[in-house]
Amino acid sequence: MGANPPAALDDSTESTVRIPADHPGVTDLFAVLAYGEISAFYRLAEEAKLSPSLRGKVSVATMAAAEMGHFETLNRALADRGVEVFDAMAPFVRALDAYHNSTDPSTWLESMVKFYVGDGIAADFYTVLATALAPEVAAVVRDVLAETDHSQFVVEEVRGAVAESRSERDRLTLWGRRLLGEAITQAQWVMAQRDELTELVLMATGDLNGVAALFEHMQTSHAERMRMLGLG
Amino acid sequence: MGANPPAALDDSTESTVRIPADHPGVTDLFAVLAYGEISAFYRLAEEAKLSPSLRGKVSVATMAAAEMGHFETLNRALADRGVEVFDAMAPFVRALDAYHNSTDPSTWLESMVKFYVGDGIAADFYTVLATALAPEVAAVVRDVLAETDHSQFVVEEVRGAVAESRSERDRLTLWGRRLLGEAITQAQWVMAQRDELTELVLMATGDLNGVAALFEHMQTSHAERMRMLGLG
Repeated sequence: MGANPPAALDDSTESTVRIPADHPGVTDLFAVLAYGEISAFYRLAEEAKLSPSLRGKVSVATMAAAEMGHFETLNRALADRGVEVFDAMAPFVRALDAYHNSTDPSTWLESMVKFYVGDGIAADFYTVLATALAPEVAAVVRDVLAETDHSQFVVEEVRGAVAESRSERDRLTLWGRRLLGEAITQAQWVMAQRDELTELVLMATGDLNGVAALFEHMQTSHAERMRMLGLG
Repeated sequence: MGANPPAALDDSTESTVRIPADHPGVTDLFAVLAYGEISAFYRLAEEAKLSPSLRGKVSVATMAAAEMGHFETLNRALADRGVEVFDAMAPFVRALDAYHNSTDPSTWLESMVKFYVGDGIAADFYTVLATALAPEVAAVVRDVLAETDHSQFVVEEVRGAVAESRSERDRLTLWGRRLLGEAITQAQWVMAQRDELTELVLMATGDLNGVAALFEHMQTSHAERMRMLGLG
């Protein structure tokens, strides 16, 4: 982190609302989160086929179902703003589909790493934004990012497998790097397309240096998560 | 219906508990319902790909997520009986997978009809059983069979499409008949394999004539559902 940490990343300061609830970027934020839930649902359901056991399939189905609960929360939050969820999500379909298409897991372990790491990257990004949002908006964001019990299942599956195989560990380490790269690429693409969202991120992080610090923070957290999985 | 309607199908009699909560068939009943939820979840997630719109995909994802909520209810009910859900489900995997494999929809409308009609056939069967079950067992069964708001979505999708196309209507009418036939075939296979479940069904319906009347009742209800969809 640089000499001037942005307010949102500085643990020593209390969070302060810098973004009013009626900022138009909030609608974009809810919408990108909403489509994120839908696309995660379908990816999980698809990838569950790779599971070697019915137990694994059921765990993944439960994680997928939780995404739809989050979608409902966002759908209601958008409706409260007078916004139709399908219209609002449309601008984000391309970037999120591109992320998933470019990171299509070919094994069960790749799919587990993607779930854990992808969720974590997204949570880092949105959690930092939440510190600057009006309380009622931040509550929605935190609610849909709340970690599920199932992360523990993922950690155990991956740690167990990589402890036994060095080549598996190397392969999944590279996979994790690719996930981070693709996630950042698509996040930047979304911001470049949506002025309201860019403004919201700038307001949350302070300035362009703050945005850079946010992405640096995401990379640091990513490295910690990879270690949790026994990777990197 | 015959001259001697089985108690469970006779509207004039109050339901009476004939099956104690500790009957071993209750474990089978919860287990077959539990695997039914899992397999329905994955089928819906898979079939959602056939949806012509994001709105349709989201409706299907929401229905699929509801199945996982039901699975959790059954998982807890089995745990309360000291039964491990995966062990309990194992005997039913083959029959339910066979049902789904033999009724794999090739269009969005076939998938909608399958969802509506399949859910209805299952609900008929289990609702009749529930009338004879101990209240705490019947409550679990009724809870997981509770109809969702999404049936209305399905009815509208199908009615609209078949009103415009006679050939579509004829095709989907045949499809509905095949669904009923396959469902009854697999239900009979399951009963033949599981003595405890057969005993439970006999206790609920009275005797073999009662079982026949139950299947007759399922066919009558099926015909009503087909009419609701504008079919048959």
